Amino acid sequence: MKIVKDLKWKKGINVNELVNSLGNVGFQSIELEKAKETIIKMKKDGCKIYLTYTSNMVTSGLRGFFAQIIKLGLVDVVVTTVGGIEEDIMKAHKEEFVIGDFNSDDVELYEKGVNRVGNLFIRSESYAKFEDLMRPYLKELYSIKKRWTPSEIFLEIGKTLEDEDSILFQAAKKNVPIFCPAVTDGSFGFHLFMFQQDHEDFIVDVVKDFQNILFSTSQDEKKGLISLGGSISKHHAILACLLNGGIDYAVYMTTARYSSGSMSGATTNEAKSWGKIKDDSDAVTVIGDASINFPLVMISVLEELDKEGML
Amino acid sequence: MKIVKDLKWKKGINVNELVNSLGNVGFQSIELEKAKETIIKMKKDGCKIYLTYTSNMVTSGLRGFFAQIIKLGLVDVVVTTVGGIEEDIMKAHKEEFVIGDFNSDDVELYEKGVNRVGNLFIRSESYAKFEDLMRPYLKELYSIKKRWTPSEIFLEIGKTLEDEDSILFQAAKKNVPIFCPAVTDGSFGFHLFMFQQDHEDFIVDVVKDFQNILFSTSQDEKKGLISLGGSISKHHAILACLLNGGIDYAVYMTTARYSSGSMSGATTNEAKSWGKIKDDSDAVTVIGDASINFPLVMISVLEELDKEGML
Amino acid sequence: MKIVKDLKWKKGINVNELVNSLGNVGFQSIELEKAKETIIKMKKDGCKIYLTYTSNMVTSGLRGFFAQIIKLGLVDVVVTTVGGIEEDIMKAHKEEFVIGDFNSDDVELYEKGVNRVGNLFIRSESYAKFEDLMRPYLKELYSIKKRWTPSEIFLEIGKTLEDEDSILFQAAKKNVPIFCPAVTDGSFGFHLFMFQQDHEDFIVDVVKDFQNILFSTSQDEKKGLISLGGSISKHHAILACLLNGGIDYAVYMTTARYSSGSMSGATTNEAKSWGKIKDDSDAVTVIGDASINFPLVMISVLEELDKEGML
Amino acid sequence: MKIVKDLKWKKGINVNELVNSLGNVGFQSIELEKAKETIIKMKKDGCKIYLTYTSNMVTSGLRGFFAQIIKLGLVDVVVTTVGGIEEDIMKAHKEEFVIGDFNSDDVELYEKGVNRVGNLFIRSESYAKFEDLMRPYLKELYSIKKRWTPSEIFLEIGKTLEDEDSILFQAAKKNVPIFCPAVTDGSFGFHLFMFQQDHEDFIVDVVKDFQNILFSTSQDEKKGLISLGGSISKHHAILACLLNGGIDYAVYMTTARYSSGSMSGATTNEAKSWGKIKDDSDAVTVIGDASINFPLVMISVLEELDKEGML
Repeated sequence: MKIVKDLKWKKGINVNELVNSLGNVGFQSIELEKAKETIIKMKKDGCKIYLTYTSNMVTSGLRGFFAQIIKLGLVDVVVTTVGGIEEDIMKAHKEEFVIGDFNSDDVELYEKGVNRVGNLFIRSESYAKFEDLMRPYLKELYSIKKRWTPSEIFLEIGKTLEDEDSILFQAAKKNVPIFCPAVTDGSFGFHLFMFQQDHEDFIVDVVKDFQNILFSTSQDEKKGLISLGGSISKHHAILACLLNGGIDYAVYMTTARYSSGSMSGATTNEAKSWGKIKDDSDAVTVIGDASINFPLVMISVLEELDKEGML
Repeated sequence: MKIVKDLKWKKGINVNELVNSLGNVGFQSIELEKAKETIIKMKKDGCKIYLTYTSNMVTSGLRGFFAQIIKLGLVDVVVTTVGGIEEDIMKAHKEEFVIGDFNSDDVELYEKGVNRVGNLFIRSESYAKFEDLMRPYLKELYSIKKRWTPSEIFLEIGKTLEDEDSILFQAAKKNVPIFCPAVTDGSFGFHLFMFQQDHEDFIVDVVKDFQNILFSTSQDEKKGLISLGGSISKHHAILACLLNGGIDYAVYMTTARYSSGSMSGATTNEAKSWGKIKDDSDAVTVIGDASINFPLVMISVLEELDKEGML
Repeated sequence: MKIVKDLKWKKGINVNELVNSLGNVGFQSIELEKAKETIIKMKKDGCKIYLTYTSNMVTSGLRGFFAQIIKLGLVDVVVTTVGGIEEDIMKAHKEEFVIGDFNSDDVELYEKGVNRVGNLFIRSESYAKFEDLMRPYLKELYSIKKRWTPSEIFLEIGKTLEDEDSILFQAAKKNVPIFCPAVTDGSFGFHLFMFQQDHEDFIVDVVKDFQNILFSTSQDEKKGLISLGGSISKHHAILACLLNGGIDYAVYMTTARYSSGSMSGATTNEAKSWGKIKDDSDAVTVIGDASINFPLVMISVLEELDKEGML
Repeated sequence: MKIVKDLKWKKGINVNELVNSLGNVGFQSIELEKAKETIIKMKKDGCKIYLTYTSNMVTSGLRGFFAQIIKLGLVDVVVTTVGGIEEDIMKAHKEEFVIGDFNSDDVELYEKGVNRVGNLFIRSESYAKFEDLMRPYLKELYSIKKRWTPSEIFLEIGKTLEDEDSILFQAAKKNVPIFCPAVTDGSFGFHLFMFQQDHEDFIVDVVKDFQNILFSTSQDEKKGLISLGGSISKHHAILACLLNGGIDYAVYMTTARYSSGSMSGATTNEAKSWGKIKDDSDAVTVIGDASINFPLVMISVLEELDKEGML
């Protein structure tokens, strides 16, 4: 029986100490600490680890943190939406995103050529420059072969990005495949379309990439999932694991609710009815903003693994 | 200046009367009534109307209602996730989904072969039967040509479904294209993959379908969006409209929050900073469950249009 | 086994028919229909029925609807916050509240003397006039006796209000007590304080009112609860019923989440661990905005009771 | 112009360093860091600081942290709900609360005499023992005088509690008044009622306590508010400050939404329309669970103040 313990500040308290204390506080702080324990178990149990996130998290400064944990070998497969690919590439080419305000005058922003994502701003010209980047990439890919899967494209682009903080760059270096089941749903898709206009035999083979994610693991392998936010990223990783016998350890971090029956809000319990998550798995859902909760949990994981010489 | 009016029950009050009264009540009831007005304006202004929804809504009984409004000519383009395709086909083949409970024992459900989606249940055998349906479909498509877009596939399948309540059937009859940017993210994707194993030259061309949705409207045409839930369905329709000059009338219905910067929770205001929604557009966000709010709004719209002989 | 049924629009469909159909749709629409059934059972089973709501609902046009259902004999006890008392009195004195916008310029509103409650506006002068009303009320009460409970005060004021749409007026006529455990938490409290400055022996006895709510029912009596929103209103009614053996039928309507352990988001399940709600009770939580969901449910209840001659 | 910066883990990173980094990440992490800055400004500007919280936070281990920051002189006035008083007293008398699970079998818990608050458990016998404590307290109070305000009662009880982690104890030592506008809404209220049964002239004067909170500050004094969760605690502190000219610095932490017009979800912007928060104030709302966000922010504040010798 675990007892609630009063939280106390000690001067200079580090993140890991705080997360450990939060495990005795209550409500989401308890789930947060469970998430930490679950990820540590994933790692110790030799899981294939899937990380999924939505593109807004790449708009944010979590991007460099994702790159770092890939570099440190904590992630084996990434699934995201295509905005999360585009913005990683933009940032690797020195585009800067700005900290703004949720309560902005959006019509005014539009007139200034500023696009808002919550309390972050992306300049329209960042997208214009992205266009200039994409054409040469696609030309070169096309010169090699005509039929590409999205994950192959991201690998090739990743190799060219000289940015330690880039997800694609670190993933390319560590042979971590990045899957994106809706590759056309963004500026990236627009450029693929433009290129196909002139090169009709250029094919993006999403079916083949489904094979790739399916073969990224197996029935025998233990599987862990860290899913941030909802969207098809979450669903796609779960699906791949389900078809390989289900997940052994799962951490969901989301602000979505279960009450509307959506995938984004679906709990780890609901996943068990499908066999998506094994019935005896360690599974935890932390309700809240991943921009706060994920760093807390993951820094704490890193500290513990480092202590045990596992990094 | 519009004044708050006390709501009163009158015996036999119909849905349209209630929605009109709700316009004077407060909080989300006001937004609900605005949504009604906005959709009526879309229609009267001759918009190309985009309807987007997530697959859980097809799990629910909204499916037949979507089919009905397509049949009645209120929708020009549909965007959804692939689960919403699969389940429409299953139901057209007489699969029945069951009303269950949010608080189920999910391990027990799993053992009984029951998959839970919120408070609805789908039997595992429904998916098994779906497999038997897909193979002949794909064979026949392949016999016609080797390269298909998702929307073409849905059109062909839709033609074969003899079910008035089927979205694909009604959409096929009315030439309403159905787009699904992540066509592999579901059981459907698995069967495409299986088929491709034996037919390597079978290609699902998502890039071409991006062209199709892009050409589904134009700069000159007025555009209206009805977006239920979040997900790439919402984003994809917005993107297609953005590339055609932006949306003139938008109704979002969602339970997601703006506070995490996600696409699902992004407001119509945020969309204006991108030019996704025109700055002088009529745009309204109704926070709440679409399973209640969408029927209320849309029935009210239908009643008004019917009164004016516009159905 | 209840099956999901496709929703269909029929011309002129009334609210009751829609709510019945929603019972076969999915997600919150199912819970909505269960709420209807539960309230009908409360009534048929002869329960003492507690209605609780937060003051923002009195700001809205739900106010007249609450008055109507009290008049129709569907409510035996009311619990609310003091803003819900103040605004009912203001409205009974012809103050009009205005429909505004969630996205207002709040500094500008302030300069115009307009106070915002979500998308509703209350003029500052409405509060000034309220002050003029309160002083004579308190003088008269004081001339009768020195020690009053809040519910006694509301009863006396209610008797003076000649407004069919007033909650206090209808409650006074039907002998429905109105409890308000935090009577000082509003403009009302300020006027009590001002009055006490000159009349030190004027006492508002909240402890005595706790006795009153406790004695408003008994162990033997069946008890039903309709709780809209969270706050102490919800808790106070539950507490009174708990001390009388627990609730037999409960409907919660709220937007709050269970995940933070708050009272507002506490589910009917959690209530069972306390014995607040009996373990074999009919209890349902509908997640969503009461400004939409409550009229839907309650109109449907009224139609059914009317059909059976029970109104 | 502030730029998004990629977050990076550095071995041994402390809480303050993390919070500073989060200020460049995005979404709620930015608001979190703003909350830190705002509280530091409150302190440096010599504000009267109001802390409000709901009772579930006292169920949790935040209780000892609240006691600590009161001891450290960071809080001048506390407003809470009565459950937050009861449980502080219970814990000061060595009652232990247990870490449980959100997904418990609540009927089973009830049978074991366990009450659930989210994922925390309180034994029914803890309440029984509380009863034994209350009677002597009330007897002694009554022997001194007959008419008490809630804040006076809490002060007297606080003096007797020999527990460094007790909110009431530290508040009593530091002359920090604790206000509770709904003092009867809990077990505490029940014992007041029982006592009044035998001592009819025992009076709990809530009107006088409204005077006390009103006179806890003045027009001239700068005012800061830290509000955790919603409820009347939040409203009551705001009201007291409004009547004294409005708040200069405000931090709200809540999971409630603005969309239903409730007080709990009301934003700092809405507050400006009332003059509750001054139009040129520093005001920030952090959406999320206070059990995580409050320790992060406040530890970071303490580290900074300590560095500057201000603790």
